[in-house]
Amino acid sequence: MKFLSIQTIDEAKSALYENFTLTPGFEKIGLSEALGRVLAEDFRANQDVPPFEKSRMDGYAVIAEDTFGADETRPVKLEKIGAIAAGESSEIVMNRGQAVGIATGAPIPAGANAVVMVEYTSTSHDWVDVQQAVVPGENISAAASDIKSGEMLLQAGTVLASRHLGILAAQGIDQVQVYEKPKIALLSTGNELVEPGRKLAQGKIYDINTYSIAGRVSECGGTPIILGRVEDCRDTLKSSLKDALENFDIVITSGGTSKGAGDLLSDVTDSLGKPGVIVHGVNIKPGKPVIISVIDKGIVFGLPGNPLSALMAFNVFASPVIRRLSGLGESRVEAVSAKSALPLQNPGGRHLFLLVRLDRDSDATLLASPVAKDSGAITALNEADGYIQIPANTVRIEKNEPVEVVLFEGRSQRLY
Amino acid sequence: MKFLSIQTIDEAKSALYENFTLTPGFEKIGLSEALGRVLAEDFRANQDVPPFEKSRMDGYAVIAEDTFGADETRPVKLEKIGAIAAGESSEIVMNRGQAVGIATGAPIPAGANAVVMVEYTSTSHDWVDVQQAVVPGENISAAASDIKSGEMLLQAGTVLASRHLGILAAQGIDQVQVYEKPKIALLSTGNELVEPGRKLAQGKIYDINTYSIAGRVSECGGTPIILGRVEDCRDTLKSSLKDALENFDIVITSGGTSKGAGDLLSDVTDSLGKPGVIVHGVNIKPGKPVIISVIDKGIVFGLPGNPLSALMAFNVFASPVIRRLSGLGESRVEAVSAKSALPLQNPGGRHLFLLVRLDRDSDATLLASPVAKDSGAITALNEADGYIQIPANTVRIEKNEPVEVVLFEGRSQRLY
Repeated sequence: MKFLSIQTIDEAKSALYENFTLTPGFEKIGLSEALGRVLAEDFRANQDVPPFEKSRMDGYAVIAEDTFGADETRPVKLEKIGAIAAGESSEIVMNRGQAVGIATGAPIPAGANAVVMVEYTSTSHDWVDVQQAVVPGENISAAASDIKSGEMLLQAGTVLASRHLGILAAQGIDQVQVYEKPKIALLSTGNELVEPGRKLAQGKIYDINTYSIAGRVSECGGTPIILGRVEDCRDTLKSSLKDALENFDIVITSGGTSKGAGDLLSDVTDSLGKPGVIVHGVNIKPGKPVIISVIDKGIVFGLPGNPLSALMAFNVFASPVIRRLSGLGESRVEAVSAKSALPLQNPGGRHLFLLVRLDRDSDATLLASPVAKDSGAITALNEADGYIQIPANTVRIEKNEPVEVVLFEGRSQRLY
Repeated sequence: MKFLSIQTIDEAKSALYENFTLTPGFEKIGLSEALGRVLAEDFRANQDVPPFEKSRMDGYAVIAEDTFGADETRPVKLEKIGAIAAGESSEIVMNRGQAVGIATGAPIPAGANAVVMVEYTSTSHDWVDVQQAVVPGENISAAASDIKSGEMLLQAGTVLASRHLGILAAQGIDQVQVYEKPKIALLSTGNELVEPGRKLAQGKIYDINTYSIAGRVSECGGTPIILGRVEDCRDTLKSSLKDALENFDIVITSGGTSKGAGDLLSDVTDSLGKPGVIVHGVNIKPGKPVIISVIDKGIVFGLPGNPLSALMAFNVFASPVIRRLSGLGESRVEAVSAKSALPLQNPGGRHLFLLVRLDRDSDATLLASPVAKDSGAITALNEADGYIQIPANTVRIEKNEPVEVVLFEGRSQRLY
């Protein structure tokens, strides 16, 4: 077995990207399925919106100059020569002294240059009394006033929200080219693990990582494929991993990375293909005993069994890969500046991810306090608003020292 | 036909909540489907996590007092009386001078009070040399150190993120009680509208609202049901609305609310049940010609056809209803303080929603500038980061006057 020493985050990431090629997939989907998906190509307007000059109001298309001086006491009388409904095209050509009834959204007839709202008119037979003067252009949306053909509308990488769907619809687009959601296979190992919903025998605990990591995969734009639990046994682990890698490019395991047990996972992945294990141990806390293996075109992230360690190792190494494949970009940067509420120690020489809770002090400054929980506590994540990072070579952070807090999904709202 | 004068937002909302009862639905779903769903009930721990005292490391369970004084040069020799793997239960009772091999996650045997990491031991036959002193409790997770039975874990209304799934899994929960996603039927009216993907004849435009409003429904936690376009014809509109209301409690139409056309929608809804139209016109801009009708237990939101007006009217009236039904709470408050980059006018006496873009000035203050686009432009929404509100009785906002900007989904990230 090859020897791999504990690496820094940067060394481990370099090893990862030197050995694994990110190849996002793309697909065309229907517009009504596209919310939240990531646009895969720049989108330029292929037509003007609106495609024609149209009325913003129900009323009468007029020649503005005919209405100058009109008011309630001195209406201007115009000849009504027709009417245009929304959705109709019209060959009408208007001359001075004439008016055409027009609905909101209907095309402005040739010759007209303004619309008088119906509220300011009265009609009798073929005549319209106009009681208000309008200026040229009034109550008309010019052709291309919203979108001009050729204009850049949406850039590749846009996470499609409702407003973007409206823009695509306005261009008549019903199929959108988006990033495929990468499918990520999840395996958990550990004879102590029991699936939620079953009874817990003595010495057993419930499998947490399958569900929290599956959730993280979705949050990173991937689709988790839960393959279930594998026995801590060389042959079973090998055949399960082999099967998984035949069907999925990315496999995430959790558990079985600690000393002794970890040798099994690294031996097995080394035996499945080249280059095999590229990272075994990173100087982060929590998350140190992570194992990353590249097997031909596939990758296996071996996360530690401890739920917090698993999540942090996922966030550092798997999340950027999944986010890049899903088009979301390497990281979601949502961080706030705060002051440390307490002096903080980092005696272990590791890059420390410290869960913190944010509160405001009397002058509204954000204060970051470490969450006081057992280091493996899954509940600590719920009490925390995010985490701060203390580099391996920083031993101490003073009280009131500025720190940057990376916020967890959904926690920013607590700060408004 | 009854006469309804233009109402204020508050009057219109009061009329809505007096006539329409919000009755959220609930359902039980599997844990792996629960990401992003809203928890419908408080969740208290039903068991301790971990359920037993367990080892955090691979190594040896010991009696800490036996190791005092041990180091590499003066190891303490202990008798190895057995080993416990993860997932095993054990009847071993340890006495002074003894040690038990133990795996990460395995239960601590009776009598032991600490774990020595395997790195600090060496073994020969039935003896273990311990090269490091440990204190009582070292490398042990106490029973219930993460979760104590009876403890409040998650509150009703929590939007389930990956960290919450982990907590539920830790408790063995495989089925979660969540809010049902309210199904919202969408109808669009307007003979000028063409479905995206089809060819645009003269005088026609693409149907934008179906897609932008469907997106907003999803963003508010609902499931949009696209019923398509209805001809501007009394009988067709009546039968389409009747069908929709038989299957869905909430129906959203867009288009056909302007003067003249609006009378059709209000006549038709009035004829379908009681109390009928409760709001017809609200003094907001954009969005004024909104029609809200309550038909027995159902509700019809008649949004204007103009895409921006439709979205604003949706945000003011439909969004709070859908969000309350879906458990998300009446509004998503995500707003930032800024200064107005320009003097702003509100001459119309209406409650103005003004789309703005945010930039930072030289001293990092946020400046809000109105988006300069045709009032109906769907692209204006994409250029804007959010909107400010100018009340009906405020005629002018000065340059540099403080304003509150309500941010659109996903725009807060641009500010970090």
